[in-house]
Amino acid sequence: MKLSINRPYGSLGQKQLSVEETLLHNANGYFGVRAAFEEGYPEGYATVRGSYLNGVYDIEPMPQAEPLYGLVNEKQTMINVAEVQSIKVYAAGELCSPFTGIRHEGGRTLDMSEGVTRRDLAWEGEHGGKVRMTITRMASFTRLPIFVVAYRIVAEAEEEIAVVTRHDADVWNFSDPNDPRLASTAERHILVDDIRQNGRVSTIITHACRSGIRVVSSVFETPDRVPDEESHHCDAFGADNRFLFTMKQGDVVGFTHIVSFSDSLRSRDPVDASFEAGRKAVADGFPVLLKEQDAYLSKFWENVDVGVEGDDELSSALAFNVYELLQSASRDQYGHLGAKGLSGEGYEGHYFWDTEIYVQPFFTLTMPRLSRNLLSYRYAILPEARKNALLLGHEKGALYPWRTINGKECSGFFLSGTAQYHIDGAIAYAVVQYYQVTGDESFMEEMGLEMLLEIARLWLDLGVYVDGTFRLNCVTGPDEYTCLVDNNYYTNASAKYDLWWAVRYYREMERKGKAQKAKRNTGITEEELSAFSRASDAVYLPYDEKRDITPQDDSFLEKKVWDLDATPKDKFPLLLHYHPLTLYRYQVCKQADAVLAHFLYEPLVGESTRYRTFRYYEKITTHDSSLSKCIFSIVAAKLGLVEEAYAYLGDSAEIDLRDSNKNTKDGIHTANMGGGYLALVFGFGGLRVDAAGIRLAPCLPSAWKGYHFTIRYRDKVLRVTVAKKEVVLSLRESGVLPVSLYDRVVRVTDKPVEVPRC
Amino acid sequence: MKLSINRPYGSLGQKQLSVEETLLHNANGYFGVRAAFEEGYPEGYATVRGSYLNGVYDIEPMPQAEPLYGLVNEKQTMINVAEVQSIKVYAAGELCSPFTGIRHEGGRTLDMSEGVTRRDLAWEGEHGGKVRMTITRMASFTRLPIFVVAYRIVAEAEEEIAVVTRHDADVWNFSDPNDPRLASTAERHILVDDIRQNGRVSTIITHACRSGIRVVSSVFETPDRVPDEESHHCDAFGADNRFLFTMKQGDVVGFTHIVSFSDSLRSRDPVDASFEAGRKAVADGFPVLLKEQDAYLSKFWENVDVGVEGDDELSSALAFNVYELLQSASRDQYGHLGAKGLSGEGYEGHYFWDTEIYVQPFFTLTMPRLSRNLLSYRYAILPEARKNALLLGHEKGALYPWRTINGKECSGFFLSGTAQYHIDGAIAYAVVQYYQVTGDESFMEEMGLEMLLEIARLWLDLGVYVDGTFRLNCVTGPDEYTCLVDNNYYTNASAKYDLWWAVRYYREMERKGKAQKAKRNTGITEEELSAFSRASDAVYLPYDEKRDITPQDDSFLEKKVWDLDATPKDKFPLLLHYHPLTLYRYQVCKQADAVLAHFLYEPLVGESTRYRTFRYYEKITTHDSSLSKCIFSIVAAKLGLVEEAYAYLGDSAEIDLRDSNKNTKDGIHTANMGGGYLALVFGFGGLRVDAAGIRLAPCLPSAWKGYHFTIRYRDKVLRVTVAKKEVVLSLRESGVLPVSLYDRVVRVTDKPVEVPRC
Repeated sequence: MKLSINRPYGSLGQKQLSVEETLLHNANGYFGVRAAFEEGYPEGYATVRGSYLNGVYDIEPMPQAEPLYGLVNEKQTMINVAEVQSIKVYAAGELCSPFTGIRHEGGRTLDMSEGVTRRDLAWEGEHGGKVRMTITRMASFTRLPIFVVAYRIVAEAEEEIAVVTRHDADVWNFSDPNDPRLASTAERHILVDDIRQNGRVSTIITHACRSGIRVVSSVFETPDRVPDEESHHCDAFGADNRFLFTMKQGDVVGFTHIVSFSDSLRSRDPVDASFEAGRKAVADGFPVLLKEQDAYLSKFWENVDVGVEGDDELSSALAFNVYELLQSASRDQYGHLGAKGLSGEGYEGHYFWDTEIYVQPFFTLTMPRLSRNLLSYRYAILPEARKNALLLGHEKGALYPWRTINGKECSGFFLSGTAQYHIDGAIAYAVVQYYQVTGDESFMEEMGLEMLLEIARLWLDLGVYVDGTFRLNCVTGPDEYTCLVDNNYYTNASAKYDLWWAVRYYREMERKGKAQKAKRNTGITEEELSAFSRASDAVYLPYDEKRDITPQDDSFLEKKVWDLDATPKDKFPLLLHYHPLTLYRYQVCKQADAVLAHFLYEPLVGESTRYRTFRYYEKITTHDSSLSKCIFSIVAAKLGLVEEAYAYLGDSAEIDLRDSNKNTKDGIHTANMGGGYLALVFGFGGLRVDAAGIRLAPCLPSAWKGYHFTIRYRDKVLRVTVAKKEVVLSLRESGVLPVSLYDRVVRVTDKPVEVPRC
Repeated sequence: MKLSINRPYGSLGQKQLSVEETLLHNANGYFGVRAAFEEGYPEGYATVRGSYLNGVYDIEPMPQAEPLYGLVNEKQTMINVAEVQSIKVYAAGELCSPFTGIRHEGGRTLDMSEGVTRRDLAWEGEHGGKVRMTITRMASFTRLPIFVVAYRIVAEAEEEIAVVTRHDADVWNFSDPNDPRLASTAERHILVDDIRQNGRVSTIITHACRSGIRVVSSVFETPDRVPDEESHHCDAFGADNRFLFTMKQGDVVGFTHIVSFSDSLRSRDPVDASFEAGRKAVADGFPVLLKEQDAYLSKFWENVDVGVEGDDELSSALAFNVYELLQSASRDQYGHLGAKGLSGEGYEGHYFWDTEIYVQPFFTLTMPRLSRNLLSYRYAILPEARKNALLLGHEKGALYPWRTINGKECSGFFLSGTAQYHIDGAIAYAVVQYYQVTGDESFMEEMGLEMLLEIARLWLDLGVYVDGTFRLNCVTGPDEYTCLVDNNYYTNASAKYDLWWAVRYYREMERKGKAQKAKRNTGITEEELSAFSRASDAVYLPYDEKRDITPQDDSFLEKKVWDLDATPKDKFPLLLHYHPLTLYRYQVCKQADAVLAHFLYEPLVGESTRYRTFRYYEKITTHDSSLSKCIFSIVAAKLGLVEEAYAYLGDSAEIDLRDSNKNTKDGIHTANMGGGYLALVFGFGGLRVDAAGIRLAPCLPSAWKGYHFTIRYRDKVLRVTVAKKEVVLSLRESGVLPVSLYDRVVRVTDKPVEVPRC
């Protein structure tokens, strides 16, 4: 498996550079810095030169065109914090850049085994300057505040080399009034409280205008050679540093630019926190940081170890995807995992259900600590979810916000926002799956059970009994091309599942004497628990007998079928070209909805229904959402349509590397990245985890020689290797793990066991 | 019948004055001037000192919180034009006002037989001033540009009387950020182009900032006594005039302030138009204008003549209501009839479906010319309605905007706006009813047929055949507490009706050789006409067999029933206290929906269904809309629930006079006013008009001695008098009109025919 992504400078087109700003960004779950050229671009180049901190937001007014009661009037937005990557190198007075001089060769590499990006530039100027530079950038996984940009400059002529840096708080957020997926108005979100410069160290203290969250960045400039000249200067918005080196041919100068971020969500004294973390990093030195990073990633790849034999490109894409997820996931409850991670400003840094359904299974199966962190964020915002339920007219329960940073709803259009009650289902699903995989009782006791109970309450309050069936009206399912429907199958199936597990785990924890906290915090009663069970049993699941398929909702199948063949290609994605009311009137899906339900809640219908449903929705799904194809791949694989599953995966795993959706510039598609992993592990691998344990049923498309993945189940690490003829299972350490393989139980130990592939 | 409304000064509370600004406003269908005290109020009093021209609007941006494709981003808003009612009288240097001096008696009267408002003030100041004044205000029905404020001032001491006027373009529109029924941001909409002052005549030439529509007002000051001093002055925003009269005790001065409005929608040279109309009014003199007004209103009351014997208050309210409608209805195709008429800024002057369903029948039955004018506005905006249909994804047809001034959609929230496709049904209904009542073939040839065909096309494109039935998905019916549903009974019934009449009238006009224009403009084909007929026959009309009622839509009866008894009184209207998603989930109605369908499309279901439906919805309807109770009254009367019908009417006819909805300050409720008339004529009178002619089935609540009304049918004026024991019918002129009375045909002539009341 190739653990690097190479991007030569090439033609240096606007589109390429915008996409690379995203693809090569450095992040560690706490902060993300987009991969702008340190020295900037020629005038006219659009760049989003952003740095973001997970969970750090500002508040923006969001007036409604018609201000109905309860509609959201302000939103949070992830802010662009002080600029820390501005470094210019001048040789013989001329800026070294791929855009200047008479020779400029090189490119950039993301090295996922070392956890750094590297940039090479062999440059010759018009006035005699000649240098080779390597710029190494790193967001430290072991020291979350620390970002490093390290220059190694080799003089290839006798010349003066100047290094000029700027630490700058004069920054704005990006906007595009024509794209509903981005902020529509440009805003300056941070205000400067103080700028301190003490020689080679500068600290910028800011706060977000309306949220008041304080953000501090300290920058430590550490050249490894005594400069011939050195100057420092600060102004109202930032600090400038200049170092001049008189070099002989062959001389080398190393210049390490260490940044340390901090914020008032996480630190009582962010100024001190930022300075101390930076000071320590400087004291330990970059080589130590590099070593730590390397060790961290060795362990990561050992735990993840996913690949496809016979398809290096796909292997590489899978590796890239999981690496990006590692960069995106918050390490604490103050942040979560945004739709774009920390790589760009698309969807304004908001967290959606995507995380729980598409991304979280990856962490649950490989890095349960990170998975727990993500759930701890949901637990932290449970009070807001309770308030939201009240606002929506529910007497009890919690309704999670459709999109948020701090827990308050940020959806401006409630039909394809707040009405998507299934986000509660996604969170409950993640809780149940996490517990089933890890058996982490302390999590269930501390947080999980309470969330499950509040979500079950919400479903109970939402539903209504009609002729003995429990029905859910006026919700929107995952497919946003059909809004505000009755009995969306996906939502109803979620409710059935959540109500059932809430009772089951409450009983289990009660038996273990670990239900007290949840009981105390919720005041749950026996009557409610009985009502949960009764409702779960009675949940109405729409079924179309004639076609033997799952209707998306009560009226979906009555609508006209959208003629996708007759729709011009430039009219996709449909949401950018058709009025919502037009889309709502037709059978046309943005993404998997009933099909997703058949993945997550597979046992609810038989295989023939799943097959016919898959075929039915395949014809009317545009996959305008990047969350769609991976699910079709999984369900196809499970239905034995292995080659079709392969085709769906091929398309979906490389959305960002190929910029297939044409908006990678705004950030990576984290959910899609998780989806690629799911497709391999749950689709081809046939993995299912439930209370009974692990089931596997691997299949193999003809284009591959094999594939492998590693998952962690109850502290045992299981390696699954699939080849043309056999499946090999083994544990990394000693012990025994019973696994159901092709519906027969295999007792897996650290000695590989080989079973013929079905 | 009392044709006046008296309002003594009383306590002069803020609430009272705000309501009176609306109730006593002067309008004539072209302009409206709110009844502010000419001299103003003490500081702190809120006043909306507005003047409005029908159809004259500005454009305002209306950004969407999430800018989805096709959503409306700007709206029109009726503008407050230059202030023309500012007149101050000083006696002995002190402002004469009910708020000043040591004595101030009097009040205001709306005299609906003369068509003026009068204000009396007997005043004694602190410095020896003592006057009696009568102020007569008139919006001329015979000279649409002309507004007059005429003072008659009697000096009751020897004193100096100064009259100071200001004609002022420094005006703003009113706003309330907390009420969705009003504009949420204050705006100055008119910009001054020129101010001309020539002695006693001032002209202000302005244009609306974004629409560019020009508005001109000319003011002519005409004292009937030579002033002792006179001065004129103008500034950047307006013109001031001052007249000083040295008076002996008993001296009288008359001061007539004549205003003439004009605009560039209606005049190529509005400056000239305004000046000329004003000049002519001055030349003819106020007494002539008064005489014209009196003659106009004599004829009006003769044509309308509606009243209840034994309930003077109700009679008076009915008279007030129809008078207000007369003040509100546009006399040309540039304007229509706003939800608040020309009396205030509620709903920003927009025109809704209310006009066609609640108000237009009054005009159709009494003043068909005005009814035709209203329809000519709908014809004028047909091109915009065609564009709107395209935007909403329909290949053909016209979809009228939910709220508009210039024909472009102004609804910011499409669920309870654009999705209310039934506005097309309302317009088609008005066309059909107008034609059935008047037999006006030239209207049908010029305009009506084309509208019917385009509306039929819209229904055909919207619907879909399922198992042989024609169904309409994803619409909102009249009840906005339930949005975006399938097969809203009301909408489906409209579609059935419209499709049927479109074909029938096309055939009729074709036979008469009068279908060419419609055919040419629409390109209608035989295939389409057949499709209309087939669809009309196949329209699915939901029916709940078990309860024998009409479900509001496919899923309405499955929802929970809202507990209205348990809802605190201060939570009404619900829309101001509950999130839309909460309301949507429940069986709770803002207003008549299925019940309205049973009035308009009565023959579609039998009486038992209508009865049970009435009883069912009665329990879950809040009447939060002022359009609701009158419909319940009508349907109750028709079902023989006469006393209940009476109770509903009693509540509904006096909404504004009693300020029952607490927002009369923002303008009259025109639809409700029409509804009161409908309740008497269609409810108690049992009037129905269809292609076969007129049917009547009068009933009488026990509280009344009788009632009467007059309607015009095919140029015959029929007077209907209902008493305890008998019904008397007669024609005003000679001729014969067959009328079906209690299902038996009576040949009515100018000799009254008396029939026992059933």
